[in-house]
Amino acid sequence: MAKDVHPPRGMRDFLPQEKSHRDQILTQIRETYLSHGFQEIETPALEDLARLTSGQGGDNEKLAFRVMKRGAELEAVLGADGQPFVLGQSTLSDGLADLGLRYDLTVPLTRYYATNRAKLPPVFKALQTGPVWRAERPQKGRYRQFVQCDIDIIGEASELAEIELLNASLDALSAIGLADATIRVNHRVLLANLLDGLGIAEADRGQAMIIIDKLDKIFAEGVVAELGEKFGAKVSEAAAGWLQTLQADKSAPAELANIFAAIESRHGAGKLRFDPTLVRGMGYYTGPIFEIEHPGSGSSIGGGGRYDGMVGRWLGQDAPAVGISIGFERAVDLVPAEEAADPKALVLVLNSDSAGCVATALALQAEAIASGYRVRLEQRPKKLGNLLEVMQQQGFGAWAAVGEEPMSLADLDIKPLS
Amino acid sequence: MAKDVHPPRGMRDFLPQEKSHRDQILTQIRETYLSHGFQEIETPALEDLARLTSGQGGDNEKLAFRVMKRGAELEAVLGADGQPFVLGQSTLSDGLADLGLRYDLTVPLTRYYATNRAKLPPVFKALQTGPVWRAERPQKGRYRQFVQCDIDIIGEASELAEIELLNASLDALSAIGLADATIRVNHRVLLANLLDGLGIAEADRGQAMIIIDKLDKIFAEGVVAELGEKFGAKVSEAAAGWLQTLQADKSAPAELANIFAAIESRHGAGKLRFDPTLVRGMGYYTGPIFEIEHPGSGSSIGGGGRYDGMVGRWLGQDAPAVGISIGFERAVDLVPAEEAADPKALVLVLNSDSAGCVATALALQAEAIASGYRVRLEQRPKKLGNLLEVMQQQGFGAWAAVGEEPMSLADLDIKPLS
Repeated sequence: MAKDVHPPRGMRDFLPQEKSHRDQILTQIRETYLSHGFQEIETPALEDLARLTSGQGGDNEKLAFRVMKRGAELEAVLGADGQPFVLGQSTLSDGLADLGLRYDLTVPLTRYYATNRAKLPPVFKALQTGPVWRAERPQKGRYRQFVQCDIDIIGEASELAEIELLNASLDALSAIGLADATIRVNHRVLLANLLDGLGIAEADRGQAMIIIDKLDKIFAEGVVAELGEKFGAKVSEAAAGWLQTLQADKSAPAELANIFAAIESRHGAGKLRFDPTLVRGMGYYTGPIFEIEHPGSGSSIGGGGRYDGMVGRWLGQDAPAVGISIGFERAVDLVPAEEAADPKALVLVLNSDSAGCVATALALQAEAIASGYRVRLEQRPKKLGNLLEVMQQQGFGAWAAVGEEPMSLADLDIKPLS
Repeated sequence: MAKDVHPPRGMRDFLPQEKSHRDQILTQIRETYLSHGFQEIETPALEDLARLTSGQGGDNEKLAFRVMKRGAELEAVLGADGQPFVLGQSTLSDGLADLGLRYDLTVPLTRYYATNRAKLPPVFKALQTGPVWRAERPQKGRYRQFVQCDIDIIGEASELAEIELLNASLDALSAIGLADATIRVNHRVLLANLLDGLGIAEADRGQAMIIIDKLDKIFAEGVVAELGEKFGAKVSEAAAGWLQTLQADKSAPAELANIFAAIESRHGAGKLRFDPTLVRGMGYYTGPIFEIEHPGSGSSIGGGGRYDGMVGRWLGQDAPAVGISIGFERAVDLVPAEEAADPKALVLVLNSDSAGCVATALALQAEAIASGYRVRLEQRPKKLGNLLEVMQQQGFGAWAAVGEEPMSLADLDIKPLS
């Protein structure tokens, strides 16, 4: 009996066809971003735990998987072997781990930029793809290890950066067959002005944004009610008025006009949509913010924004920055699987004990590979018909059998699987 | 002042040119293996700690990074908040972690096969590439996160499996420019027979193999002396006699003749070399074992062997298996970096505040991308000459400047950077 074995909770194995599908999509996204002049980098999966829990990561900080200290450092916390020790929970729990698995690619990027800036161009256009880990309660479509695809531009204060990010991302989404994607856009300064206008104090902005962010879940009534509870009747009245005007006018405000014009010039009207209620969770955004949507998905398939203050934190001097992330797992779910482009062929080895037979099979395989096939060798099975049927189902389009005696390759044309 | 920021000890950031180099090599290896009919899969970076420390991983088990339990499970170990608790070190240390980062791709593969076997072909030819983590003392050329490239064949008991692995791996090494690689081969059964002949009991085989494995470090004299210390004068005399005969005859024994003949038929003589002293560390090997060498590297650049007993452990029934791993980091060091194949072009945006100028720049960029360029947009810098010089150094071969007024694309031919 097989033991009950499975990957850790919330994490996934990928079968060959799934892996191939994911790899195709990831390659198309990466190639598009590379063609737009972004440069691919890589950081380790682990970062110092202190950095991962320093306030940059928002709610995700609580979800970091923590890696225990090792060797002498662990012993120093635990005390000498065999000696029981006494410690309060939080102290112990904190002191035992020194590293953590990254929960996003943004915190590592800001660290990377501070570490390597001397070797990078003044305007750095970074492409990063890779797994991140979050100890979330597993649920449908939400995983504890998943892939993110991020591009960021550091060192460019002008809107050219936003334009490049949005332009390249729309091209990347088109490349994987998601040309119907649209992007909602807002501006944190507009959001701040709005909150001022509603009579909310600067110190309360964060709380108010959290409430407005729930608009799609609790609707206008819910938002008005919650704002009223927190900030009084005057604010809730003003908010009700504001929310009523929303349907009427969603033309892009002056703060976003250049970005809208540039994207329209390449992608036509309607790709960007101004949404004055868009908040985006992270506290670090300072300018335009984006959220990518697709008619096939109920939730956003990516997003980002400008975060001018954050990079400076590790760097010791300010650096403007803007980034956008495609939610790879959601994009994969939207893209139908295609067969790999390379044709597949089967070479049957009728007698694997015969040196001549094996040598001929290897030569035939090499010849077929050179002409573009993916070639699988297989011993002659008991039931040849069954094998050929299975192979045909798996997309094999050609086969050849290599017999006991050495043959010349000319006699061994790969023939179609009928 | 910039804070002193760096990746965790023993782990690396990759600059764009390093990342591109690594990606090129990894792609060539993967494409070669795919062309040989191997199917790519992926497993999570984390596995249950109990699985990672169950004896399959040899010495690497001690090097696993351990991931702490979370939430209620962690609290259950630590006790209620604020209440100090008392525990012995080893109990506490064990009970606090439930997951670990994989230290190789073999243990996850055997788990994957047991989990997914019903959806895999009877003879499963797996390709896996990805990072693994080991908490080793960092030293030159040894990292705490590094990439492995493994292929394994599960379900094929005949030597055809060894032949396919070696044939495909020699092709993969040639594809990345390491056609000079050779492979040392031995057979665990021959090793067992040899140890019998030296008078070493079956129970002592493991210890004796560890000593013989040190041959390249302590030489024949050292091996003879250590065998004598452990197993007495008779054994050391016999070993001295055996080691003296080695230089004379290294022709492949009957147990390996088919493998040698098949590889010679495709790759010529001398690619495989029989080495009766080759041990390979892992306890789980049961048949032929391999170690890949290259004249440019002082240590092996990969290896593997047959491990027929191991997959059955999770599966509950035996499955023959053989695998080989290319040491990616060592291969990367041996392959000189090449420029990316795609030509690079620069489009200068002379006025990023002008909607017409930006629109024209985006259109020009799209046109150049469509004709195969990687196109970087850049604002006009204060010192144009400096920028063009830097760009030329970085391999940009063409540029165009887009002025204040909208222009037609015909006026904007990308011109060579002189």
